[in-house]
Amino acid sequence: MSNSTLYEHPLNERTRFYLRVEQLIQSLEDSRNGDCPSAHRSLFRTLFELCDLLERSDIKGDLAKQVDQSLTLVNQWQSQPGVDQQQLQALVDTLKGQNAALLQMERPGSSLRQDRFLSQIRQRVNLAGGACGFDLPRLQFWLGQPKEQRIHDIEAWQATLAPLTESIALQLQLIRECSHWENKVAIQGQFLHNADHPLALLRVRLDNHYGCYPVVSGHKNRFSLHMMNASTGSAEVRNLPFSLSLSMETP
Amino acid sequence: MSNSTLYEHPLNERTRFYLRVEQLIQSLEDSRNGDCPSAHRSLFRTLFELCDLLERSDIKGDLAKQVDQSLTLVNQWQSQPGVDQQQLQALVDTLKGQNAALLQMERPGSSLRQDRFLSQIRQRVNLAGGACGFDLPRLQFWLGQPKEQRIHDIEAWQATLAPLTESIALQLQLIRECSHWENKVAIQGQFLHNADHPLALLRVRLDNHYGCYPVVSGHKNRFSLHMMNASTGSAEVRNLPFSLSLSMETP
Repeated sequence: MSNSTLYEHPLNERTRFYLRVEQLIQSLEDSRNGDCPSAHRSLFRTLFELCDLLERSDIKGDLAKQVDQSLTLVNQWQSQPGVDQQQLQALVDTLKGQNAALLQMERPGSSLRQDRFLSQIRQRVNLAGGACGFDLPRLQFWLGQPKEQRIHDIEAWQATLAPLTESIALQLQLIRECSHWENKVAIQGQFLHNADHPLALLRVRLDNHYGCYPVVSGHKNRFSLHMMNASTGSAEVRNLPFSLSLSMETP
Repeated sequence: MSNSTLYEHPLNERTRFYLRVEQLIQSLEDSRNGDCPSAHRSLFRTLFELCDLLERSDIKGDLAKQVDQSLTLVNQWQSQPGVDQQQLQALVDTLKGQNAALLQMERPGSSLRQDRFLSQIRQRVNLAGGACGFDLPRLQFWLGQPKEQRIHDIEAWQATLAPLTESIALQLQLIRECSHWENKVAIQGQFLHNADHPLALLRVRLDNHYGCYPVVSGHKNRFSLHMMNASTGSAEVRNLPFSLSLSMETP
């Protein structure tokens, strides 16, 4: 456990959505790799939450457009001196592959929605304690299967969403990497920032020993950051040093 | 992984409720002992589900009555020859302790409901992907705390429900132990049973290599069991041997 915590805050709707998806994917993968059947039991809710998010409106089209924009940007980088051409070319290839996969993919979540086993679970999973073995004997049977078999099934379900989840992971990686860390101080626990360029994401790294966490309010052009004391639950008035990283929106 | 799966089916409302609580407790403990912060993040929903179940109507009073009935029953056993008096006395002491703890405990879930940190999470936890670090920076701070600190907090939350959860665990243990296993065959995948005494719980142990799971319908006086084929999703027509254990309702 490091002695500092990373706080991320999206400053536009797109990044906000990406971060939600990313967290569900992380949780899904942790559950998939978990050692007890409980982890696999709890995985279904995360899978359905992910479907709920990804089934909304035209995510596929918007993401394909973002991947296209990233391609344009990366092509611009290629003309700059001193860049690693091989690494850039690999990135171009990945982005092109993601674009093609997005255009070819089915309607997000549709094959999962048609799966009878998953549908049975989906109906019960939001009831308090409603996914017991006796509610869902077929789930109980599945949980009794060897771990390799269960992981095989989970990977097949995840694969149907992969064009979306992989593109979002790369988009977030690009957003995060196009920024640098600076040391700042929250004077009397406060920090304000007016942005020259619209921002997509802010990140704060704060030492845990202050016992504080940052609360962010704002949007892509302007934000404020208030340090809160976790023990007292009220605003912190000390001057607190922290690291700040700001990622710009892609043009 | 054993090559058989245990299926339990409650045959009255009380046992049905106990099994729901038990599964949530199991899931809570697995998450608490989990190694990744994801496990601790997913634990909150389980905790709130448990509260939702335990806050309902007069669970405390009903449970205290059940513990009383168990005491009467165990006292009857003490007069029978050949029983382990020391073990029975320990059980009597445990039951008496549980009864006292139930009578003294606060309204189930009330201190958890008053906890500001938990309330913040509870408001967001049922939204799809709604418990991100940026939604709940205080949760992010908590997840950045050393594991021992987090486990300490979780145990304190669990402790507020312990009189209920511990009594339910013991009640289920008594229900399960007051039965024995018998070998049965589901003729053409079907098995019917008319009970002489009202039943609380049925348990089926079935070899996984048949690729089947049992679907139970019925109630405390009568039930039927249909074997379903997991691959085809339709009723099984082979004769299938299985083990059956029936637990009676306490008088």
